[in-house]
Amino acid sequence: MYDHEITLRVRYGETDRMGYVYYGNYAEYLEVGRVEALRALGFPYKRLEDEGVLLPVHELWLRYHAPAYYDDELVLRTTITALPTARIQFSYALRSSSGALLTEATTTLVFVDRSTGRPMRAPQELLNALGPFFSP
Amino acid sequence: MYDHEITLRVRYGETDRMGYVYYGNYAEYLEVGRVEALRALGFPYKRLEDEGVLLPVHELWLRYHAPAYYDDELVLRTTITALPTARIQFSYALRSSSGALLTEATTTLVFVDRSTGRPMRAPQELLNALGPFFSP
Amino acid sequence: MYDHEITLRVRYGETDRMGYVYYGNYAEYLEVGRVEALRALGFPYKRLEDEGVLLPVHELWLRYHAPAYYDDELVLRTTITALPTARIQFSYALRSSSGALLTEATTTLVFVDRSTGRPMRAPQELLNALGPFFSP
Amino acid sequence: MYDHEITLRVRYGETDRMGYVYYGNYAEYLEVGRVEALRALGFPYKRLEDEGVLLPVHELWLRYHAPAYYDDELVLRTTITALPTARIQFSYALRSSSGALLTEATTTLVFVDRSTGRPMRAPQELLNALGPFFSP
Repeated sequence: MYDHEITLRVRYGETDRMGYVYYGNYAEYLEVGRVEALRALGFPYKRLEDEGVLLPVHELWLRYHAPAYYDDELVLRTTITALPTARIQFSYALRSSSGALLTEATTTLVFVDRSTGRPMRAPQELLNALGPFFSP
Repeated sequence: MYDHEITLRVRYGETDRMGYVYYGNYAEYLEVGRVEALRALGFPYKRLEDEGVLLPVHELWLRYHAPAYYDDELVLRTTITALPTARIQFSYALRSSSGALLTEATTTLVFVDRSTGRPMRAPQELLNALGPFFSP
Repeated sequence: MYDHEITLRVRYGETDRMGYVYYGNYAEYLEVGRVEALRALGFPYKRLEDEGVLLPVHELWLRYHAPAYYDDELVLRTTITALPTARIQFSYALRSSSGALLTEATTTLVFVDRSTGRPMRAPQELLNALGPFFSP
Repeated sequence: MYDHEITLRVRYGETDRMGYVYYGNYAEYLEVGRVEALRALGFPYKRLEDEGVLLPVHELWLRYHAPAYYDDELVLRTTITALPTARIQFSYALRSSSGALLTEATTTLVFVDRSTGRPMRAPQELLNALGPFFSP
C-alpha cells in the first residue's frame, strides 16, 4: 500500500451558492491528490504523458459526508491499494483540519498508449517505483 | 419511473489538454440534467431552495465509457427510478449525437431543511408531481 | 458590424457563496457567445482549429454592473466591430431577461498558425463571410 | 505600495484542448493571489465576509502574453497600488518559474455592506493595516 497526503485551501470560486464546495469541484482535488502522490514516488504524471502514456479516468465514486467551506484547509490522503495492471485505482479520504472525514472517493484510471489509442499495461518504471510498497 | 432528456453543447473551457471533456466537468452536466428534469415536472429546483429546502449531493458515481470532445452535442437522459424519501436518486445516460453511450452516472441527494440544517422528507408537492409516474 | 444573440441559463456550479455567478465564469459565457456568433456566420470555431488555426485570447476586459444569479436566463449579445486582421475583437453585452445590463466585456484574440506557432492573418474564408457586414 | 507573492501549480482540469491554461481560469488564480495578499496583512478575506462586508469584483482586465501549461509552477505577484476608498484595486503579474511574464492583470473590487446591499468605505481596520505601506 502506498499513500500520500497533501493540504488544499478551498478557493472562493470553488464554492456555490449553498456556501459549500460545489460537488463537482472535488474531482479536481482528487486529481491534485493523485498527481502529487505520483510525484512523491518520483513519477510526475506529466512525464507519463510526455512519454506517450495517457491516463484517463474510467470510474469515479464520491461520498460526501460533510461539506467543505470557503477558505478551509483540507487534508487529502491518497492511497494506491494495489499494484496497477492495465488500470490503477486510487482511494481518497478528505478531512477537515480538525480531522473530521468530509469526503471519501475512489477513482479508476486506465493506461492508454497515445500513439495507438489502445489500452496498455502500466509502465514498468511505475511498477518498479511502487514495488517496495507492496512487498510481501 | 420518470425520465427527461436534454441536449448539451461542450464548451471549450470544459475540455482539458487531452482534448477530452475533463472528468470533473460531467458533474455540472448531471446537475443541468436533474434541474431540467425537475423543471419539466413543474418543480424548479430554485423554488425548492426559495422555500427553504436544500438538496446537497450525498453520493456521485460516474463511469466513463468514451470521451466527449469540444463542440460535441450530447444527449443527456436523466431518470428518477423511485419515489423520493429523505433522499432522491437520479440515474443518467450521456450519449453522443449518434447514440453512442459515453457516460453513465448516478447521484443521490438528500433533502435538508435549511432553517435547522437537518435532513427532512421530500416535500409533499414533489411527491405529488412524481406520483403519476410511479402508479402501480 | 456583425452581431449575434444567445440565451444562457446560469448553472448551480457557476455561482459562488455570495450567491452570484463567480466573476471568472463569465469568461466561459463569452466563449459560448463568440463561438455561436461564428457558427451563425457559417464558420464553426472547431473548423478553424481543425484547419490548423488556433485563436487564443490575448486580452480580456469585463465590467460587472450587476450580479447574475442561479437559474437566471441571460441574454448575451456578441458583436464583431471591425474586420479582423491578425486579431479579432469581440464586444459583449450580457443582460437579464428583463433587459438590465449586467456585464460588458471585450476580448481580443489572435490568429496563430498551429504548425509554426506564429501569428497569422485572419483566414480569407472568414473575411469573406464577414465582408457583407462591413460594406461601406 | 503593498505587494505579496505566491506560487501556484497548474492543475490538469485548468487546461483546455489547446494545452494552455483556459483563459477564464486565471480569474481564480488572481482570487487566490489577492486573498493571500490580504491574509499576509493579517486580514483574511473570510473575516471580512464574516463581519458583513462583501467585496464583489467590479472590473477585470487581463492580458495574456504567453501561455501557462499543465503542471507549471507559476509565480503570482499581487500589488495594492493605492489605499482603498470605496474600492480596492489589485494589480497582478504572473510569471513562469524562469521569470518570463505570462499574464498581467488588474481587478477593481467594491466594498458592499451585506446588510444593506449598498457600497461602503473600506473598513478602518484594513486601512490601518495598509497605512504603513503608503506612508509618505
